[in-house]
Amino acid sequence: MKKLALTAVCMVLAASGTIVSAQNAPAPAQAPAAARPAGPPPVPPLGDGPWDVQGADAKLHVEVVTKGLDHPWALAFLPDGGMLVTERPGRLRIVRDGVLDPKPIEGLPPIFAPGIAGLTDIVLDPNFATNRVIYLAYSKADPAEGANPTPNVNSTLAVMRAKWDGAHQLTEVKDIFVADAWYGKPPLPPKCCGQGPAFGSFGGRMALDSEGHLFVTSGDRNFGEKVQDPSNHFGKILRLNLDGSPAKDNPLAGRQGAKPEIWSTGHRNPTGLYFDAATGRLWETEFGPRGGDEVNLIQRGGNYGWMDVTQGFHYNAEPAKKGTRNVEGMIDPVWAFGPPSGNPGNLAIYRGSAFPQWQGDMLLAAMNRSLVHFRLSPDGHVVWKEDLLSNLGQRLRDVRVAPDGSLYILTDETAGAILRVTPGS
Amino acid sequence: MKKLALTAVCMVLAASGTIVSAQNAPAPAQAPAAARPAGPPPVPPLGDGPWDVQGADAKLHVEVVTKGLDHPWALAFLPDGGMLVTERPGRLRIVRDGVLDPKPIEGLPPIFAPGIAGLTDIVLDPNFATNRVIYLAYSKADPAEGANPTPNVNSTLAVMRAKWDGAHQLTEVKDIFVADAWYGKPPLPPKCCGQGPAFGSFGGRMALDSEGHLFVTSGDRNFGEKVQDPSNHFGKILRLNLDGSPAKDNPLAGRQGAKPEIWSTGHRNPTGLYFDAATGRLWETEFGPRGGDEVNLIQRGGNYGWMDVTQGFHYNAEPAKKGTRNVEGMIDPVWAFGPPSGNPGNLAIYRGSAFPQWQGDMLLAAMNRSLVHFRLSPDGHVVWKEDLLSNLGQRLRDVRVAPDGSLYILTDETAGAILRVTPGS
Repeated sequence: MKKLALTAVCMVLAASGTIVSAQNAPAPAQAPAAARPAGPPPVPPLGDGPWDVQGADAKLHVEVVTKGLDHPWALAFLPDGGMLVTERPGRLRIVRDGVLDPKPIEGLPPIFAPGIAGLTDIVLDPNFATNRVIYLAYSKADPAEGANPTPNVNSTLAVMRAKWDGAHQLTEVKDIFVADAWYGKPPLPPKCCGQGPAFGSFGGRMALDSEGHLFVTSGDRNFGEKVQDPSNHFGKILRLNLDGSPAKDNPLAGRQGAKPEIWSTGHRNPTGLYFDAATGRLWETEFGPRGGDEVNLIQRGGNYGWMDVTQGFHYNAEPAKKGTRNVEGMIDPVWAFGPPSGNPGNLAIYRGSAFPQWQGDMLLAAMNRSLVHFRLSPDGHVVWKEDLLSNLGQRLRDVRVAPDGSLYILTDETAGAILRVTPGS
Repeated sequence: MKKLALTAVCMVLAASGTIVSAQNAPAPAQAPAAARPAGPPPVPPLGDGPWDVQGADAKLHVEVVTKGLDHPWALAFLPDGGMLVTERPGRLRIVRDGVLDPKPIEGLPPIFAPGIAGLTDIVLDPNFATNRVIYLAYSKADPAEGANPTPNVNSTLAVMRAKWDGAHQLTEVKDIFVADAWYGKPPLPPKCCGQGPAFGSFGGRMALDSEGHLFVTSGDRNFGEKVQDPSNHFGKILRLNLDGSPAKDNPLAGRQGAKPEIWSTGHRNPTGLYFDAATGRLWETEFGPRGGDEVNLIQRGGNYGWMDVTQGFHYNAEPAKKGTRNVEGMIDPVWAFGPPSGNPGNLAIYRGSAFPQWQGDMLLAAMNRSLVHFRLSPDGHVVWKEDLLSNLGQRLRDVRVAPDGSLYILTDETAGAILRVTPGS
């Protein structure tokens, strides 16, 4: 089965209040061969905006805050109104008063950044206002490989803790957690299913709960055979104390041969994570194999199936070993994308004031170039869905709800942008 | 809020295994004014087919059985392999060996058929093979208005029972149920919200349960103010015995001033109904106001909100009186369409053998020109969705799963067709 080469969805949205186009006619039975596209449509660079977009139940006004970021991955709001932003190649940047500081923050350790590896998420300490402590998730190469390792070295996911001086320096930088998922140096053990290189699928999203625990997603490193084994950190969501130790009431705590940090298992590449304090629910997005992208509601000790169960197909077109869904002991996703793939980035549950009609809705930044807006039932099922911002044509990596209820969105591009979304008029 | 004039979704599907087009590029910021469409795109007539369509998890082969029907509304499979098909203007037709009999069946009473009123659903008696009894739902004008009433007369929903001779004659034709929803003759009582004419919104879908009850949907006749009143049949789903009497354990049985036929209330125009014997679930689709189309899981005695609660907007743009969702005492839909509107016709739960990967999935014929394929969780929530057959560009009114697992679909067009869908290769 091909990855939806045969199906394309085109959302034609209004720009600046103008109907630009509405190509809704069915395809003609015979089209000239010359009209067939050779590949995915080209992605135009992001314009300067602003754009006014009509959604199903809201008008959105979209502005560019900056375009000067290289694959921005995560954004954290500072108490003073500024923002810290990670760039995947390994830089930490500051935005103040809507202006990107040209000078990155110094003091990061070496970041392993081939492919989609790199510096990923940032979370502020609950007491950041007084202690200026931050947590950063990143991909880490075996230190024995030196300062400039090739992609084919052992590497893993790590979480560092650091103190930021509020200007351009980190101090007291320390790994508080290094995943037991070292992998990548040839000769590699055999693996099935056409899985990708070891320097992908690191996970690297984080979320704080209301009790001072740090959830961290750890990807399967394209070695899914490891995931159902609880004695490692491949394909798991972890729940840590803020010093990196395992939270004491984790589901496998005290079990012989199991990692005490594990909160849930059966994940491929969880690239989105959101703790919704209003409901206590932990939401996750997961990059699956072909046609297997997911939104999950994470339960303590839950097994989400990978790599035995997926609604997608392995990259070599094999079906999953134990099937697609309704498998005993495995939890199915709340939403299964695709085909076409959702290519999900991060997500958020909207609890802001700027869009009162969106209370409790889910917003998901998708690399297939839209902001997916899900309406949820009170028990957390999807009852409606729309794709927003497709008109921008950008890969969207992160979405955050600001204290004022506006949305901040990161585009996962080499000329990566921060977009701000407020209610339109 | 405009009814999605500003948003169009275009699904480009493969025809005959060929990629015809993939217009996925974002709209240009400035399009020439001349390119703006003045209205919805024109609907081309249905081609001769066959078509091979690539879905997310199935290949579909689509053939035209016949194009000779005028707004076909419902289809019933006969034990001998033939089919009976209703035409909304008021004809009952036979298809044998894939050929439409040019001569309609005689013996129907006068059918009131202005606008979207007319002959709607057909159900075979559980003992049809021996008694040749059928049930037909239809719109009925006040008999005092004579043979050719104008649209502005009192009318209602009725269900007739008849015996079919297997050729071209109905006998023993008798109304077994006439809804207490007579309405339409001026002067009409005042009503709010920009509601449409009284000769629309009749409902008229039916489904048999496993115990010999006939469920019948009754629309709100565009007079939604009547729906929350249990002393009438406006906007209700009814549960009848096969003689038209109310089933004895209905939720309002014996309640003073309430109609004993009522099974559920709060409906606008329920145009789809399916009893899934495998789960005992009764599924409904409902034409809502602007952006308020729904899929509902019908519970005994449930109140589905209309016209106090809807996720859409009234036609005069007023919001619903009691809000959109999560309202005490009202049941929210399992799926809320749009905008863009779903314009749902009938639906089915797939339990056939031809598409084994679709077991328990929902298929919904939509007048916005697609067959919507929903994957359901075991507890009946939508976890994934795709639009199929958009390439045909036809309004789809009914979908039925044949005994051999193939799908039969009716197009709601003046040159209305029966389509047959089997697995492609």
